[in-house]
Amino acid sequence: MKIICSQSELSKAVNIVSKAVPTRTTMTILECILIDASKNVIRLVANDTEIGIETQIDGTIEEPGIVALDAKVFSEIVRKLPDNMVIINTDSDFKTLIKCEKANFNIIGKPGDDFSYLPELPKDDAIVISQFSLREIIHQTIFCTSDTESNKIMTGELFRVDGGKLKVVALDGHRIAIREIELKEEYASRDVIVPKKTLNEVSKVIGGGLDDDVNIYITENHITFVFDRTTVVSRLIDGEYFRVEQMLSSVYDTRIKISKSELLGCLDRSTLLVKEGDKKPIIMNITDEGMHLVMNSFIGSLNEEIDISKEGADILIGFNPKFFIDALRVIEDDEITIYFVNSKAPAFIKNDNESYIYMILPVNVKTE
Amino acid sequence: MKIICSQSELSKAVNIVSKAVPTRTTMTILECILIDASKNVIRLVANDTEIGIETQIDGTIEEPGIVALDAKVFSEIVRKLPDNMVIINTDSDFKTLIKCEKANFNIIGKPGDDFSYLPELPKDDAIVISQFSLREIIHQTIFCTSDTESNKIMTGELFRVDGGKLKVVALDGHRIAIREIELKEEYASRDVIVPKKTLNEVSKVIGGGLDDDVNIYITENHITFVFDRTTVVSRLIDGEYFRVEQMLSSVYDTRIKISKSELLGCLDRSTLLVKEGDKKPIIMNITDEGMHLVMNSFIGSLNEEIDISKEGADILIGFNPKFFIDALRVIEDDEITIYFVNSKAPAFIKNDNESYIYMILPVNVKTE
Repeated sequence: MKIICSQSELSKAVNIVSKAVPTRTTMTILECILIDASKNVIRLVANDTEIGIETQIDGTIEEPGIVALDAKVFSEIVRKLPDNMVIINTDSDFKTLIKCEKANFNIIGKPGDDFSYLPELPKDDAIVISQFSLREIIHQTIFCTSDTESNKIMTGELFRVDGGKLKVVALDGHRIAIREIELKEEYASRDVIVPKKTLNEVSKVIGGGLDDDVNIYITENHITFVFDRTTVVSRLIDGEYFRVEQMLSSVYDTRIKISKSELLGCLDRSTLLVKEGDKKPIIMNITDEGMHLVMNSFIGSLNEEIDISKEGADILIGFNPKFFIDALRVIEDDEITIYFVNSKAPAFIKNDNESYIYMILPVNVKTE
Repeated sequence: MKIICSQSELSKAVNIVSKAVPTRTTMTILECILIDASKNVIRLVANDTEIGIETQIDGTIEEPGIVALDAKVFSEIVRKLPDNMVIINTDSDFKTLIKCEKANFNIIGKPGDDFSYLPELPKDDAIVISQFSLREIIHQTIFCTSDTESNKIMTGELFRVDGGKLKVVALDGHRIAIREIELKEEYASRDVIVPKKTLNEVSKVIGGGLDDDVNIYITENHITFVFDRTTVVSRLIDGEYFRVEQMLSSVYDTRIKISKSELLGCLDRSTLLVKEGDKKPIIMNITDEGMHLVMNSFIGSLNEEIDISKEGADILIGFNPKFFIDALRVIEDDEITIYFVNSKAPAFIKNDNESYIYMILPVNVKTE
């Protein structure tokens, strides 16, 4: 194989497909990036069997062929090459010369025979969404997924296509995030659970342009994202997602409107009093006078007052400040509305059309 | 004690003195920042007994007094306060209220009785140097000091005042860095060894302005840096420094001129073939045709050619690429001159007036 392409394009492509290279694996071939120039295009592929990424680059194929190169070594070399044309030349033993200006690297490649390409899946009935919206909706929900593998379903997000809407749900047992966006067209309804790792990697490699689209294809066991010249294929998580609707209630005893930035500033400061691993709640005392926030820890104490407009009963309720902070950071509105039932029931931060709903469970606090 | 000052100034001062707070100590009082408003000025002090820093801030003293506050907690709180006026109010039990806009923190302070203030040292015969020059000369030499405490002297730098010149020397057993700058005046000659930690911290807290000066005072066991409203006092390292002059030779068999950026680019790429802990040399083969660089490792091999202008004998010599890279990164010249004696003797990178000299020991390479 002999190909010639630009360092900048090669570097971008290597960066994209590297996201699918496993960090630990017993199959060394998966630690490689495959360069496939056997047909008319130059394709780079990586696949850790859960998630696979393929991307195409422009270039000249002087001699068609395929080679698999150690992803770590290859990507570090490509990144450090000067910004000029790169020649990649492989001999029959897969010894590979990487040449750019005066730099000459020789590394050992492998044949691509036992490399697992992306599965060939039918690509019809694409759900179209802008790269910007997809990236936003992932960012606004993914922090609510769980890291523990004990409940596999919590490590993914529900993607629910419901006519002309896409609803994304994440939950981790302490809180729920729900985001809904309008799609440009109507689609057949379906529910799938997408692994958070896939969503993380997709949100890193999509450009995020408002006018650039992503085509999403859903098949029985896979979800495929196609954008620019890149295809990401991921397995779905098996199972049925939690019935989130049953956890949401529209009844409330207290409703407040509060400045997001003031609340966020105060909660952010309160975390200074919490050492890692420690679980001190922030106590909100909501009365007609305003919201009084208190945190006491062995480091010291914090006392703040924030103006609110309140409707309904007074309430004293405690939360893990981190859960509130995470939600507030991804809400765009500056004035937010919070709904409370009682000091043992979850609080809801949501807007009127419910394009976002964040539910947070309170923690028990002793009420003097 | 009750003082009022601006968050921005307080935050800057806390950041400066924090550099002298020890990370681990058995004396908890040293983990504090002392606020001393007992006289007409507000002073912040930290002291780990090796290095002590004091800085003054503007503010109003409503009630004179002294309090010692846990450095970590205090600095995190100050950093997160809004940019406005801060009130620090201590009661007779050293309970301290930190108030800024709506934020109210209560933390427990300590009396300053057993706090160690900076030693009172005579301040005469200041050596004056611009903040810019001091920062540069530290940056250009400090990477050659040693981290191992087995030879204490190697963990410091020689500061030699010699009439109208300041010479700074660092060495670690594999290489030497020497930098010399002209001082604005003539001073009495003297040699002192300054701990690298002190120099690191000083270079972080000086502004680095070309027109801002640092006054340096040297006493028997201490060096004091005074700049802006800050004083840094450090112990010196006891002992006599190595006789570096004897290690420098002006005899050479080969002299080359080479582009620094080309050599640095090549060496930088060669490190891609070296895994951590591994010690692969880069081999330079210098002939009339140019410099041919080769590195072979189990990852792969690198081959490059760089144009040079050469005087004297051909030479084949190997180096740890990192040592060359460190030196090249702090040399401003684009064309550099390298002097070689033979493949077992150190190489020198130096300019004509010897304002910089970098000596690097070669490594043994098998010459086929």
